[in-house]
Amino acid sequence: MTGHDLLKYVPSLSQLGEIDVHDLLFKDSSNMSPLDWKRIAMFLIAQEKRYDAFIILHGTDTMAYTASALSFMIANFTKPVVITGSMQPITQPNTDAIDNIYSSFLFAAAMIRLRQRGITIAFGGQLIHGPRSQKILSHDYTAFTSINYPHLGHIEKGEAILTHRPSLLTPLFHQKEYETFELETSVFLLTLFPGFRARYLEYIVNMEPKAIVIEALGLGGVPHLGESLLPPLKLSQDLGIPVVITTQCVYGGVDLNVYEVGRKTLKMGVISGKDMTREAIITKLMLLLPYVEPYNVEKWLHTNFCDEITLP
Amino acid sequence: MTGHDLLKYVPSLSQLGEIDVHDLLFKDSSNMSPLDWKRIAMFLIAQEKRYDAFIILHGTDTMAYTASALSFMIANFTKPVVITGSMQPITQPNTDAIDNIYSSFLFAAAMIRLRQRGITIAFGGQLIHGPRSQKILSHDYTAFTSINYPHLGHIEKGEAILTHRPSLLTPLFHQKEYETFELETSVFLLTLFPGFRARYLEYIVNMEPKAIVIEALGLGGVPHLGESLLPPLKLSQDLGIPVVITTQCVYGGVDLNVYEVGRKTLKMGVISGKDMTREAIITKLMLLLPYVEPYNVEKWLHTNFCDEITLP
Repeated sequence: MTGHDLLKYVPSLSQLGEIDVHDLLFKDSSNMSPLDWKRIAMFLIAQEKRYDAFIILHGTDTMAYTASALSFMIANFTKPVVITGSMQPITQPNTDAIDNIYSSFLFAAAMIRLRQRGITIAFGGQLIHGPRSQKILSHDYTAFTSINYPHLGHIEKGEAILTHRPSLLTPLFHQKEYETFELETSVFLLTLFPGFRARYLEYIVNMEPKAIVIEALGLGGVPHLGESLLPPLKLSQDLGIPVVITTQCVYGGVDLNVYEVGRKTLKMGVISGKDMTREAIITKLMLLLPYVEPYNVEKWLHTNFCDEITLP
Repeated sequence: MTGHDLLKYVPSLSQLGEIDVHDLLFKDSSNMSPLDWKRIAMFLIAQEKRYDAFIILHGTDTMAYTASALSFMIANFTKPVVITGSMQPITQPNTDAIDNIYSSFLFAAAMIRLRQRGITIAFGGQLIHGPRSQKILSHDYTAFTSINYPHLGHIEKGEAILTHRPSLLTPLFHQKEYETFELETSVFLLTLFPGFRARYLEYIVNMEPKAIVIEALGLGGVPHLGESLLPPLKLSQDLGIPVVITTQCVYGGVDLNVYEVGRKTLKMGVISGKDMTREAIITKLMLLLPYVEPYNVEKWLHTNFCDEITLP
C-alpha cells in the first residue's frame, strides 16, 4: 500500500486526530541503508514544528536498526516518534498491521499527554525504547522486545499505559550538522564459535575496516588456547582498529572482567560492548567513526546518550 | 573444583544411585575446540556399557555448541546424556550449580525409567534437546532455552517431569568411524546489518572457507539494492563454496521463499538454514564438510538427523 491507503485500512484513526500522510521510501526493509536513516531524520526535523507526533511505518527486518540510528541522530527531537509495522501484510485477513498502527497512535497520544519524547517502536501491544529494541522472532506477532531495559509501556483494555520514561535523551551531534554529516559503514561484525579459525580474524583485520565488532561467547569470552585470537587482536590494536567485544547471547550483555578469557582481551585494548544491543553498537559506531579518532572511540562508545547503555 | 569434589558439594546425590566421577578436561569453555567434542564423544562411547546414564559438567559459554556437536556425533548413543553447569561457581553461596547438578541426575533417572535417550542440557529446572539449545542470557540462572522446539521436561515439586520425546535420533556417521573422523573448522559466520559493505563479503569468499554462514535479516533478507550482496554470493557459488543463510532473530528461523530479498539468493543456490540454531548449523557443517561434496551439502544439511530441523 502507499501511505494514502492508511485511513482506508484503519478508518478508526480519523477519530484520534488530524493525520497527514507522507510517502518517504518504497523498499523492502532488508534494502534499507544508512542513507535512508539520514533521509528519515532530515524529514522529521523539517516537519518537527508542524506535528505533535510522528508515526513511521517500516518493514520489520531492519526496524530495530532504524530505531537505534534515529535515537542517536535526533535524540533531542522534541516530538514523540513511534515506529511500527507488521508481520503480515495489511491486505491479509490475519494481519497485525491494523492493531499495530492503531496502538502506535494511542502510544503517541499518551506520550504527547505526558510530555514524553524519544524514538520508540510499537509492536504487539508493547512500546519499546528505540536503542534497546531488537527483532527476536522472525515469525511471531510479538517479534520485538526490549533488551536489558524495561518496556516503555503497553496496551491494556484498549488504552496505552506508559510505565517507563528514559532518563536521558541527548544526541551525538548538533542537529544543524545533519545535512552534512557522514555515516561510516566500513564496520565488520563477526560471531565466534568453538573452532573459529584465528587466521580469518587476521584477514579481516588486514581488510582494515574502521571498526570490528565481535559477538563473543557468554560474558565476552574469546579463545586464547589452540586457535588463539589474541595475535590477530594484537594486530588490530597495532593498526589502530577499534575492536568491540559483545556477546552472542541475546540478553545480559558482556562483562570482560569476570573471566580470564575476557580480561586478556581487555588488557590488549579491546572495547566492551557492555549491555548495548548489536543494533545500538553498529549504528553508534557508524555515527561516531567519522568524527572521533580511533583512540577516542572507547570513550564515546561508553558515553550514554539515550539510555542505550547501562553504566556502573 | 575437580570432579571428585562433586559428592562433597552435592552430598544428596549419593541417595540417587552409584556415581563414578571422571575428570576429562580442565579449561574455560570459551577455549573448547572441536577436538574436545571428539574427546568427550570417544569417552562416552568407551564407557557406554558401563553406566546407565552420563552427566557432563561443562562451562556455559559453549555448552550449546557441545550439545549440538555431540547430538550429531553420537545420536545413536543408547544411554541418556545430560549436560549441565552453572552461572555462579559451586563455591559461591548463591550458586545454581547444586540445583542444576541435582536436577540433571533427576532428569537422567527419569530418562532411564522412560527409556528415553539423547543428548540434553539441564539448566534452570528445564530439560532441553541438545541440538535445539542456546544460551540466550549471559547472566541469568535461566540462561538456556530451546529454540523452535518444545522443552523436553522440567522440574516440578522436586520431581523431573518429561513432556517431550524427540522423534528421531540418527547419527551423521557410523560409530566405528569416530576415531578417525575429521571436523572441518574452516567455516565463516557473519552477521548482516544495513550498510554492510559488499566488498567485505567478497574478501571472505576469496579466503575460500569451506562454508559461509550468513545471519541475515528477518526471514533471511539479503540486500540487493545499493550495497548488493548478490555479486559476492554469485562468486561464492562459482567457487563452489556453500553459503547458508540463517536469521539473526533468535526464534523463528528463515524462509527464503517469502520475500524477494530471500528468493533472489535462493535462485543463486544459497542454502536455507531453515529453523536450525546457529550452533546446530555450525556443528553440522563441521561434521559434514569433510565427507560431503560441496554440491551435496544442501541435501545433507536439510536432512533431519535428530530433530534439529523442522521440515515441511
